[in-house]
Amino acid sequence: MIIQLEKNISEDQIQTLKTKLKDISYKGNRVKTQFSDYVICVGKTDFDIRSIGILDGVRDIHKVSDAYKLVSKKWKVEDTQIDLGDSIQIGTGNFEIMAGPCSIESEEQIASTIAHLKENNVKIMRGGVYKPRSSPYSFRGLGIDGLKMWHEQTRAAGIKIITEVMMTEQIEEIIDYVDIFQVGARNSQNFNLLDALGKVDKPVLLKRGISGTIDELLQAAEYIFSNGNERIMLCERGIRSYESAYRNCMDINAIAMLKEKTHLPVIADPSHGIGVRQFVDKVALASIMGGADGVIVEVHSTPEKAFSDGQQTLNYQESNRLFDRMRKTFNLRESF
Amino acid sequence: MIIQLEKNISEDQIQTLKTKLKDISYKGNRVKTQFSDYVICVGKTDFDIRSIGILDGVRDIHKVSDAYKLVSKKWKVEDTQIDLGDSIQIGTGNFEIMAGPCSIESEEQIASTIAHLKENNVKIMRGGVYKPRSSPYSFRGLGIDGLKMWHEQTRAAGIKIITEVMMTEQIEEIIDYVDIFQVGARNSQNFNLLDALGKVDKPVLLKRGISGTIDELLQAAEYIFSNGNERIMLCERGIRSYESAYRNCMDINAIAMLKEKTHLPVIADPSHGIGVRQFVDKVALASIMGGADGVIVEVHSTPEKAFSDGQQTLNYQESNRLFDRMRKTFNLRESF
Amino acid sequence: MIIQLEKNISEDQIQTLKTKLKDISYKGNRVKTQFSDYVICVGKTDFDIRSIGILDGVRDIHKVSDAYKLVSKKWKVEDTQIDLGDSIQIGTGNFEIMAGPCSIESEEQIASTIAHLKENNVKIMRGGVYKPRSSPYSFRGLGIDGLKMWHEQTRAAGIKIITEVMMTEQIEEIIDYVDIFQVGARNSQNFNLLDALGKVDKPVLLKRGISGTIDELLQAAEYIFSNGNERIMLCERGIRSYESAYRNCMDINAIAMLKEKTHLPVIADPSHGIGVRQFVDKVALASIMGGADGVIVEVHSTPEKAFSDGQQTLNYQESNRLFDRMRKTFNLRESF
Amino acid sequence: MIIQLEKNISEDQIQTLKTKLKDISYKGNRVKTQFSDYVICVGKTDFDIRSIGILDGVRDIHKVSDAYKLVSKKWKVEDTQIDLGDSIQIGTGNFEIMAGPCSIESEEQIASTIAHLKENNVKIMRGGVYKPRSSPYSFRGLGIDGLKMWHEQTRAAGIKIITEVMMTEQIEEIIDYVDIFQVGARNSQNFNLLDALGKVDKPVLLKRGISGTIDELLQAAEYIFSNGNERIMLCERGIRSYESAYRNCMDINAIAMLKEKTHLPVIADPSHGIGVRQFVDKVALASIMGGADGVIVEVHSTPEKAFSDGQQTLNYQESNRLFDRMRKTFNLRESF
Repeated sequence: MIIQLEKNISEDQIQTLKTKLKDISYKGNRVKTQFSDYVICVGKTDFDIRSIGILDGVRDIHKVSDAYKLVSKKWKVEDTQIDLGDSIQIGTGNFEIMAGPCSIESEEQIASTIAHLKENNVKIMRGGVYKPRSSPYSFRGLGIDGLKMWHEQTRAAGIKIITEVMMTEQIEEIIDYVDIFQVGARNSQNFNLLDALGKVDKPVLLKRGISGTIDELLQAAEYIFSNGNERIMLCERGIRSYESAYRNCMDINAIAMLKEKTHLPVIADPSHGIGVRQFVDKVALASIMGGADGVIVEVHSTPEKAFSDGQQTLNYQESNRLFDRMRKTFNLRESF
Repeated sequence: MIIQLEKNISEDQIQTLKTKLKDISYKGNRVKTQFSDYVICVGKTDFDIRSIGILDGVRDIHKVSDAYKLVSKKWKVEDTQIDLGDSIQIGTGNFEIMAGPCSIESEEQIASTIAHLKENNVKIMRGGVYKPRSSPYSFRGLGIDGLKMWHEQTRAAGIKIITEVMMTEQIEEIIDYVDIFQVGARNSQNFNLLDALGKVDKPVLLKRGISGTIDELLQAAEYIFSNGNERIMLCERGIRSYESAYRNCMDINAIAMLKEKTHLPVIADPSHGIGVRQFVDKVALASIMGGADGVIVEVHSTPEKAFSDGQQTLNYQESNRLFDRMRKTFNLRESF
Repeated sequence: MIIQLEKNISEDQIQTLKTKLKDISYKGNRVKTQFSDYVICVGKTDFDIRSIGILDGVRDIHKVSDAYKLVSKKWKVEDTQIDLGDSIQIGTGNFEIMAGPCSIESEEQIASTIAHLKENNVKIMRGGVYKPRSSPYSFRGLGIDGLKMWHEQTRAAGIKIITEVMMTEQIEEIIDYVDIFQVGARNSQNFNLLDALGKVDKPVLLKRGISGTIDELLQAAEYIFSNGNERIMLCERGIRSYESAYRNCMDINAIAMLKEKTHLPVIADPSHGIGVRQFVDKVALASIMGGADGVIVEVHSTPEKAFSDGQQTLNYQESNRLFDRMRKTFNLRESF
Repeated sequence: MIIQLEKNISEDQIQTLKTKLKDISYKGNRVKTQFSDYVICVGKTDFDIRSIGILDGVRDIHKVSDAYKLVSKKWKVEDTQIDLGDSIQIGTGNFEIMAGPCSIESEEQIASTIAHLKENNVKIMRGGVYKPRSSPYSFRGLGIDGLKMWHEQTRAAGIKIITEVMMTEQIEEIIDYVDIFQVGARNSQNFNLLDALGKVDKPVLLKRGISGTIDELLQAAEYIFSNGNERIMLCERGIRSYESAYRNCMDINAIAMLKEKTHLPVIADPSHGIGVRQFVDKVALASIMGGADGVIVEVHSTPEKAFSDGQQTLNYQESNRLFDRMRKTFNLRESF
């Protein structure tokens, strides 16, 4: 059950509400976000929710049977739009592309990527400066210095930055240089990190776990939301399956279902989703037909020389073609 | 290695070829299909294939390193088109829809379905008369009598029939009433059935196993081809995953990869693919963007009253809309 | 609901029962097995089963909520023992080993295997004469001639034969030479084959599908039982998982659960279960602690020269050691 | 390649080694642990390792082709034993049980558990004070106060504590009250946490990810080891599969394989491994036969009243019986 409070609810009204909840043995969690003020209630007894709805200071009340509450469409029917500033919005009829290399490598690489994005009217650049790597002996990214260098160039170009944050301590260090925090698949149930990202006022793109369920993804998003941050995007990036012909199994079904279950925007990551360069194109277009609000894709001037994951990265010629096809596919879908 | 023979190869030329193969310790399998005459060779030593290519009676020779040979695109680069007669072709730029109920139930149901298909210019009707069911106590289909009744109506209407065959003994019984034999997911490695279907001259739609690999699917198709039947379609129908939010995990990745690995047409089955009615639409369109040459979809006048699988079956209003969207999506894809 | 009938139930009594079932809208399936006579009823209304239990000709009646009925322990609490003759029993405190090569290859190989089994007091020999192979170009077994040759030697030695049957047509051909019919993983939902095996009076070992659920396995067994054959063993042989370090994932959990859910004996197949020779030993012993009533294991005098699957096959020295350890492990388990 | 250095290697000798590695284009990572001093080298060119082995200051050198190096048995053949003090050792022929509740709940609960462990000669108590929970609205543990209360009682009783650490910041807070740090399945690739645990001198039990591969688990352990901490145990706790009859699929195969691939001790967690109380017993015994060096198991005086995960927790009567059976099973295995 979600109780949305009036902005100006008084202490007395809060007390009355608390007493009422206690009477029906409900536990209430107060949630204040950038935009609103809620009490999320968990309990077992059945009762007439109107008896709470009529209390002073209560703006709205909804029953939500899902384990996740605030991110559920059962509570909030209209899709959420995330405003990144400079007229860049994600969700609700906009289609945004995020593109860039797996890892930030050098000033030259950044400049080349920005030029490529500008040419194609892509406004959000992806790239890693802290890289989660299976082996401790692999390259782990340029860190904060790489980010600052990157930030300088994108600011000048009017491009937004999305990059992965791997631990709570990094949030403060990088927040001024980042437009969207990305939570990687391996951290999708790092609950302390999710708690911390709920306390900042920057959008978060949350990836599904390597074999995460749809329900787990939504509950992970609930962690962020219930700590105070409503600006969340979900990201399907392929799941682990028995099939070894591809790296991951892009789960188109999850995209379709997420759009029914939550009001949050859903982004598709076809590069990791299938993990094989020559199929990224088809999987990206399929994801749009499946309902994705945006696509995040790896591009590099010379994929074969990329610091990491070159085998799933498009070159500029391939991405030029894909950007165009994605927009046409999105337009057709929106015409339905 | 695939050696394609001249149609008029002589016995002497065959003997010369045999001797040559024996010399290099290769095992040769003679394969005669509706269209051509081959020797498929498996061996380990490396040699110059031109020494065979120049023999009289040999038309063409190719090395194929895949475990499957005749169905591989490494051998036959151009896509295969399957002609069903009456100007109905599957593959190579045509988009065909197969639609109909899970089970054939009655004359009225057949008539209603045919009318619905005619209205939408759909030329192939699906339906089961032998139903594989998990429980022995469930309805197992109307059998041969249902098929004859169905056949009578479709002939009059100019509609083709696709239906599942479950065992070798049924082939002869039903062959005169069927335009496409369907092999279900549970029989995708029923090698005796595949052998037998290789010996008939009717097209076969072969479904991927419930957790079949792409490689297994192609080798299963090789069974049919190497027994003499070249007219094979492959069908992606969702794989089993850990996710319980949907019935199956439609594997868009497999569609994209199959189109690279084989020259055979690929059909998508979104109804079983996700198994949840409200998402069949999006998954079907995604499959087309993934590369599908056709879509097979379950429709019923009143899904809630269907004998089986009603929860994944569209009603006429839903399928009307889907037929239109699928064709538009296919047209956009072909324009790329 | 399962109604067990008296052996001498009269036609009049049957009619009374039928009328009664019709009154409560239950569909009854008459099942006659080697040992008994049942009516399996499926329906939705709730009623007092005693009203049927008191009818003349009715011996016993049980409610069974599982989708499978006759194989459920909810109906038959005592474990089933399968008698192979010559004092060889499977289940209920006996521990039987089945051992032998993947494929029957030659007279010498059979003789060598038999000698090895006799030395170790193993009474059941496994081996394939019809082999399901992923590729149509692989060796498919010696067929009926191989089986006859094998049968001759085992009869003389007092050894029982278990071998795979792949299609209905083979049953009659091989029944006289076989003591246990094996249904392979790929045919675990070949319902026509299961129906046919329900009509013969020889024991059947039914393998779990490559990614079959426990429930599907039990329903597949119900097919055999409900066609009249009560003598069924279930076999866990590893499931398909995302892990590529081993060939299959032996599912010890399934063994433990099957022993709770069904009265049928459960056999473990560690050779296919993990598919890597050096680990067969540990997996076999673990399976016994998990509850297995027997183990089927691949042995060959020279695994590296075996016609197929040599990489999961033990040599005689390894199997000698394993036979001994398995019996000690079983004895410890039975002492608990 | 692993180069083990002499303890008293000089700066000059280090320089000579560095020059030598540079000559052959190898990247060297210096690793100092509690026990030794290494250089881990990654490179591609082939050369005679003896040319390095003969350098002054080099104690030993090994080629290791695995992606993980220091945890590989290819480098260190003898199994590692972890000494917890007070004559408690894990690995190499000892069998240790860790038992206790899912969550620490109260002083009374702790006292009751300790009494139960003492009675059964179990020396390590498990329990959670920081609980990773799918939903943000669930109980998340008593935190540091709960741990201090717990620590006080165990010290008095001579019992060791194992508890989960969820984030880097918690390490310092809890290190004085903990004998073994546990890394949960959801944090198995939280590389920053692994880095940090490599820098403390307390043993770490590292759980396999929810769908982690064996290789990923070993590389995660390499993170800890290469940061300086050699005292690592690996833990198999069940993987995610398509089967819904149990909560997780305890992967006995992984236990058997880990014992071949690494010298680190392997602990089985049957409680999470299958996640169904009535089968914990069999799965625990199977794990021992699979090669486990120890078992961690959930026990509670009244599982049905436990704060969390009661459905997989044994009561004292059940665990009494299991402790006894596990020791007997271990003894039989060691006799082989």
